[in-house]
Amino acid sequence: MNRKSVFYTLGLILDIEAVLMLAPAFVSCLYREWNSALMLLLSSAITAAAGSMLLFICRRRNRAIYAKEGFLIVSLGWLAMTLFGALPFVLTGELGFVDAVFEIASGFTTTGATIIDALETMSHGTLFWRSATHWIGGMGVLVLMMAILPTDTEGSVHILRAEVPGPTFGKFVPKLRKTAKILYLIYIGITVIEVVMLLCGGLNLYESLVYSFGTAGTGGFGLRGNSLTDYSPYVQWVIGVFMILFGVNFNLYYLVILGKVKTALKSRELWLYLGIVVFSVTVVAIHVSSFYGNFGDTLRHSFFQVSSIISTTGYSTADFDAWSVQAKGILFMLYFVGGCAGSTAGGIKIARLILLGKTIRRDLRHMIHPHSVGVVKFEGRRVDDNTLRGVTSFFVLYTAVLAGTFVLLTLFEPSVDIISNITASMATLNNVGPGFGMVGPYLSYSFYSPLSKIVLTLSMLLGRLEIYPLILLLSPGVWRRK
Amino acid sequence: MNRKSVFYTLGLILDIEAVLMLAPAFVSCLYREWNSALMLLLSSAITAAAGSMLLFICRRRNRAIYAKEGFLIVSLGWLAMTLFGALPFVLTGELGFVDAVFEIASGFTTTGATIIDALETMSHGTLFWRSATHWIGGMGVLVLMMAILPTDTEGSVHILRAEVPGPTFGKFVPKLRKTAKILYLIYIGITVIEVVMLLCGGLNLYESLVYSFGTAGTGGFGLRGNSLTDYSPYVQWVIGVFMILFGVNFNLYYLVILGKVKTALKSRELWLYLGIVVFSVTVVAIHVSSFYGNFGDTLRHSFFQVSSIISTTGYSTADFDAWSVQAKGILFMLYFVGGCAGSTAGGIKIARLILLGKTIRRDLRHMIHPHSVGVVKFEGRRVDDNTLRGVTSFFVLYTAVLAGTFVLLTLFEPSVDIISNITASMATLNNVGPGFGMVGPYLSYSFYSPLSKIVLTLSMLLGRLEIYPLILLLSPGVWRRK
Repeated sequence: MNRKSVFYTLGLILDIEAVLMLAPAFVSCLYREWNSALMLLLSSAITAAAGSMLLFICRRRNRAIYAKEGFLIVSLGWLAMTLFGALPFVLTGELGFVDAVFEIASGFTTTGATIIDALETMSHGTLFWRSATHWIGGMGVLVLMMAILPTDTEGSVHILRAEVPGPTFGKFVPKLRKTAKILYLIYIGITVIEVVMLLCGGLNLYESLVYSFGTAGTGGFGLRGNSLTDYSPYVQWVIGVFMILFGVNFNLYYLVILGKVKTALKSRELWLYLGIVVFSVTVVAIHVSSFYGNFGDTLRHSFFQVSSIISTTGYSTADFDAWSVQAKGILFMLYFVGGCAGSTAGGIKIARLILLGKTIRRDLRHMIHPHSVGVVKFEGRRVDDNTLRGVTSFFVLYTAVLAGTFVLLTLFEPSVDIISNITASMATLNNVGPGFGMVGPYLSYSFYSPLSKIVLTLSMLLGRLEIYPLILLLSPGVWRRK
Repeated sequence: MNRKSVFYTLGLILDIEAVLMLAPAFVSCLYREWNSALMLLLSSAITAAAGSMLLFICRRRNRAIYAKEGFLIVSLGWLAMTLFGALPFVLTGELGFVDAVFEIASGFTTTGATIIDALETMSHGTLFWRSATHWIGGMGVLVLMMAILPTDTEGSVHILRAEVPGPTFGKFVPKLRKTAKILYLIYIGITVIEVVMLLCGGLNLYESLVYSFGTAGTGGFGLRGNSLTDYSPYVQWVIGVFMILFGVNFNLYYLVILGKVKTALKSRELWLYLGIVVFSVTVVAIHVSSFYGNFGDTLRHSFFQVSSIISTTGYSTADFDAWSVQAKGILFMLYFVGGCAGSTAGGIKIARLILLGKTIRRDLRHMIHPHSVGVVKFEGRRVDDNTLRGVTSFFVLYTAVLAGTFVLLTLFEPSVDIISNITASMATLNNVGPGFGMVGPYLSYSFYSPLSKIVLTLSMLLGRLEIYPLILLLSPGVWRRK
């Protein structure tokens, strides 16, 4: 293992984080919250110091980065980012250490599960930082690093592959650095459009930014305990539509920009994604119409909740935990689906579900015709056996993590019911945020014991990084020097 | 596809079923229930007529049986057996058609989920038939057919492989017919020991047989609405231990008979199975001790429920749905585990879980060392890639069936809560029987709508036949003539 290169990159990540922390400090200054501004600046300084120290120690590094190093950089990078990112909450005294780590992991992983019961007591600066982590974590901090720093080593592909969600990683252009730049430009572009549209809806710039960050990263942190319930139908529609948009594979936006709209519309993943949305909205709407007076309200709430859960954002315009059993059952299943590969959404993701289905079909065919050679194609291209094996392995690991989280929560929490623990496990691993029962959309995770909060924090990180990088941390083979 | 050979075997299966139906008719006669005796005889006659007709029509068959035919024989055989097996309930008027099919599918698949609310109103003969189906379905009717009929074609292995649970099928001896005979002799032997031990506990012969059938097949049908709650601790201990025994791979018993005890004790699957039992009993006992006065009662109830669910039997000595959240959480997870491969238990099964774990480990190693060649070994032997692929495919399909069942139940049942629908899906697919909530251990499935009952019936059959045979029925490729 090339330790110096790994820790050098960790240093870069921390320095980038330190710079990003200046934005919330500025927000705190605007709102004349001097204590919080000071603590944000202090956090930034500590993070910058730690990062720069790593850069200095590891300056004589060997640039070779392979799969192993890629996984380590991503997993250690995210752990470091989370720990340092929690500093502002700890230093301002707004949250204890475990709570702060939970909250900021929930931010970076774009989960949006909160342990804060009274959002109005928090400062504007720290809440802004909390929401900004959604935006940073959504596309990935290492993708950001590649987009802004002039490094384009051969190993970069291993880092991107480990950080960008989905079973495969598609380069837009031969140069990885350019791919990362394009990804971020699209990301910024759509975010800006949303900010403008929310400004038009009467939200101030601060609110518009917070909700756009939450939508873009498919995170779900907001400013009120009942999420978006009190906002206008216009704002709800805008956010509802943008959640769907951020769940689409960013490759398709790039194709649209290149004018290849037809190619983009050929994506099977896109159509299955939209198909599931239409089907779910229809079924949910039928079963919640008795809760709302008219068709417009029924459609808006149904669409919003479906959009929020399939994109794994977690915003809500209604207490869906109080909805009818059928509506809840559909939402329950959507937790697992998630958005498209290459989007900022969590969950298993449509591409993986398609590949799982195709693998099964191939294996069934093989059972009837033992001598058949099964070729699996996806989006017009042949998928190699390694990728397919990776998808099924991921699915097994995913289920194991889900089951493990549930068992640990069950053992640690004598007073939490089964459905709350199940949905808490689902909502964290799939990076959705709220669940049912005691972790319902208007409630928080504050009642969990510190031990359970650590388990849930790990579950969120495992979900965002799609398990492998963190699991490999535990393998002694990874740590061995060459 | 070799249709004649498939339907000829179906004829054999139905004729065997017709002969087996004579036993409950005899029981009815003993209890002087003349109407039920008559209807059982009539059912037997109808089944025999149908079977013999198939034998006559397909008498000029070509004996070649391949994988395709093996799957078809098993799936169609089980469907036919279920439909004809439901006749006694329908003819006596004790149950409607859908209910009768549900009940008898629950019997053959050794699920033990019932739709009968008042068992005391049923005749001894039909209840005996209901429990006998557990015993027949446990080891498999096709295994029985091979054990008693002088046919040993090359294709038999395909039939056994499709009917015997587990990822691999191990022949004891080169001759398949002898393997089937040994399996049944072991099965009969342990059943007889249990009958004798229950007779010693004060049960009459009828009760002893019913509960031994329920234990041997890991089924769970009994004679009282509160299962085994009212029986003596001795009876509860005996049944508790035998449930564990019937969840063990029958290969190990054969090794013991051959005197190879040491080889049998080397089985990793056995030790993991017993380890999970000890761990679960300990955790459950700690968390239910407050419900019971003394250590003995706590241990007995904890052991019984753990044994009942891991072996997928479904008997109960207590209303475990009323237990603490932790105890329920552990039981909830045990639904998925199931017994060992090559036993009469359902569930995913320990062997598959071990192979899933090993596959994941190999794939992880492959990620760090892309050029490594991963060999997976199990019980000292190398497992080929086809088997491993089969195991992961099974797991994906299994999850899909579980999710599908849950979604359909959710859509069909406006008044059933999520946890009842989830556990009903789990309890049928894993062939356990009772679940939590509205399908708790002292309750029945009678409240479900006919549509849901059909879904649950299919879920039970999919669980017992381990999905593939039934799924392949839907593939047009299977039906094509050569």
